[in-house]
Amino acid sequence: MKADLDKLMKQHDIDVLFVTGSAQHNPAMIYFAGTAHVSDAFLVKQRGKSPVLFHYPMEREEAAKSGLQLMSYSRYPMTDFLNDAGGNYTEAMVLRYKRMLEDLGITAGRVGIYGKDEVGPVFSIMKRLEELMPGLQLTGFVRDEILLNAMMTKDADEIAHIREMGRITTMVVGKTADYITGFKTKNEVLVHKDGSPVTIGEVKNLINLWLAEAGVENPEGTIFAIGRDAGVPHNTGTPSDPLKLGQTIVYDIYPCEAGGGYFYDFTRTWSLGYATDKVQALYDQVKQVYDTLLSELVVNAQFAKYQERTCELFEAMGHPTVLTNQATEVGYVHSLGHGIGLRVHEKPWSSLINPSPTDILAPGAVLTLEPGLYYPDRGIGVRIEDSLWVTPEGKFEILADYPKDLILPMRV
Amino acid sequence: MKADLDKLMKQHDIDVLFVTGSAQHNPAMIYFAGTAHVSDAFLVKQRGKSPVLFHYPMEREEAAKSGLQLMSYSRYPMTDFLNDAGGNYTEAMVLRYKRMLEDLGITAGRVGIYGKDEVGPVFSIMKRLEELMPGLQLTGFVRDEILLNAMMTKDADEIAHIREMGRITTMVVGKTADYITGFKTKNEVLVHKDGSPVTIGEVKNLINLWLAEAGVENPEGTIFAIGRDAGVPHNTGTPSDPLKLGQTIVYDIYPCEAGGGYFYDFTRTWSLGYATDKVQALYDQVKQVYDTLLSELVVNAQFAKYQERTCELFEAMGHPTVLTNQATEVGYVHSLGHGIGLRVHEKPWSSLINPSPTDILAPGAVLTLEPGLYYPDRGIGVRIEDSLWVTPEGKFEILADYPKDLILPMRV
Repeated sequence: MKADLDKLMKQHDIDVLFVTGSAQHNPAMIYFAGTAHVSDAFLVKQRGKSPVLFHYPMEREEAAKSGLQLMSYSRYPMTDFLNDAGGNYTEAMVLRYKRMLEDLGITAGRVGIYGKDEVGPVFSIMKRLEELMPGLQLTGFVRDEILLNAMMTKDADEIAHIREMGRITTMVVGKTADYITGFKTKNEVLVHKDGSPVTIGEVKNLINLWLAEAGVENPEGTIFAIGRDAGVPHNTGTPSDPLKLGQTIVYDIYPCEAGGGYFYDFTRTWSLGYATDKVQALYDQVKQVYDTLLSELVVNAQFAKYQERTCELFEAMGHPTVLTNQATEVGYVHSLGHGIGLRVHEKPWSSLINPSPTDILAPGAVLTLEPGLYYPDRGIGVRIEDSLWVTPEGKFEILADYPKDLILPMRV
Repeated sequence: MKADLDKLMKQHDIDVLFVTGSAQHNPAMIYFAGTAHVSDAFLVKQRGKSPVLFHYPMEREEAAKSGLQLMSYSRYPMTDFLNDAGGNYTEAMVLRYKRMLEDLGITAGRVGIYGKDEVGPVFSIMKRLEELMPGLQLTGFVRDEILLNAMMTKDADEIAHIREMGRITTMVVGKTADYITGFKTKNEVLVHKDGSPVTIGEVKNLINLWLAEAGVENPEGTIFAIGRDAGVPHNTGTPSDPLKLGQTIVYDIYPCEAGGGYFYDFTRTWSLGYATDKVQALYDQVKQVYDTLLSELVVNAQFAKYQERTCELFEAMGHPTVLTNQATEVGYVHSLGHGIGLRVHEKPWSSLINPSPTDILAPGAVLTLEPGLYYPDRGIGVRIEDSLWVTPEGKFEILADYPKDLILPMRV
């Protein structure tokens, strides 16, 4: 939680955090500043102090929504620094950063760099800044144990945001089910009144519309894939594909709050009208593994332990998994889940490859549980996913309930 | 244009471009790969060669949509590199990059770094990669004269994308005008049938809905601000504010194609029912400056020249401008415009501060023209903005026509 940040900084010997970029669709910035129309900002968080936000003067009112201490770039006119830098723009930018830091009393220390931003300019500016301020040691974390660890455990307010996104997400999933089960069929294909087929593309458009109606965003798209496409986990679906009876539809939806706030992540697998025996059998296996895992989760356990367990369960059923073949494209081909928050994928990770000791089912964490089986050549994919909150009491709570029926009976 | 890229790389002595991040909402990646559900990708573009896209095996079908030469990360198992790196994850990542580059025959040369991505990990990985591959010189451009120069001039297909976004944008603006002029008023406030006021927030929700209906995204939000808020250029509007007659509404809308494709950028200023003399007078001045500028634009001229001209025109009318006071918060307080494309703000820039010789009105460029006047203490803001294409023949074409009436007469 945010309250742990100073402790985590100390533990990893970091004195200052830098966050660059805008306050939209930029998790590190939004974590401190909330979502606001603030572009090219610069946030500085010193250990033991409150963060300070540097911003353009034109965006002062949006910046003020953050509730943070503000410093306007108008106090640092680029023309002055360009003079000092002999007209070299990059050098002028670096001199400006130096001045801003000095004004905060920062001239030495270990700094962690954060933000989703254009990587090129940040790379060059930070490298040069390190030369000009030899007391600073700048570093970025490939496996971040500071900010991502703080973000991993959510407070009550954050849980309320994610829960509301869960409500909206499952509401939209319900609308989708209602919509597609209301069509007539012709030769097992869902058809409009004029006889034209109902397509994946038009359903995806409606999903976006329903999400927008609810005031949320869908920046990463939706997986709504049928048949063979469903058998490739990250195939998002072919817009022109018609909806057919008796084929698996994998529906994986992960919208976020407007401006880039909290995400939800949710998957159901449907078969319209009926299911073939093969599909039903695979579905039952995935559901059984899901239920087994849910019953076995223990607070503070290593998440990767359950990835191993999932592989073992599926292998006992005769399926190839990533445990024995990391590159398998059939059977169980991905990880069991991941944390969600201001990112759709964040800590804790469940990967078996070099797990961190902090990738655990800690109280306050919100994570997905999403076992699946994939056989693209047979035209089948199955995945079931819910987002779970590890409560302060160490219970596992699904943040948005929704039925897990494979077969959606047609109503017409 | 993309066809100029090898020439630009040679001109700036760059042998290779790296692009990191996903193929959504990441302009540099989308420029080469199109929008696709490809995360944590790595694109390498050598001078004189076609780009190569490294991707996760699970996302192979999405990656294939790019039409690029593909290389799967499955050929580079992290477990191998973790072994070589003694379990150090960052080091293993760097070794993997090194191997991927060696497989492309890249062991030396000057490299430009691109991509909108988490800056921290990229900073550390690239710094270490430079140490491990001393033949490589890595650099990021604060003022990019390679990729951004190529992107600055658009080909016919790109113009078609932006034009279509202009059609959708102005269609939504028209819907907004129709909607808000259909209400009754009470004491100059627009009201619903139940007498409750019509608010900024509900109009903004509808704008999002209409954009979603049209299949586009609005990742940066919309400015729909009335009265004093309209007087602060980047105030996006207060959701609870009621819509009132005779007050300026600044409506600045900048949606993009789904997944983070091409943007449009457009602003109108409205006064509902009637306009006060003061508002009308300010509006006429902005309109006059807009018309003067549009008539004076010359192909291949420096964009900043017209920023200077705008300041002169407004100062002759008695308004403060950024020309004499860079930090002014009243009068004309921003730049004249900017390029648009896969970013809502890109080259050419119109800023007077250290303009680049390449910030010109080049054939193929698409740019905004957006003069405005702001007096927050008087509760007035005015801005008029269209997006213009500099045609191959050197003409300036507004990509989406829309009336420039200040007063929207109420229909009820």
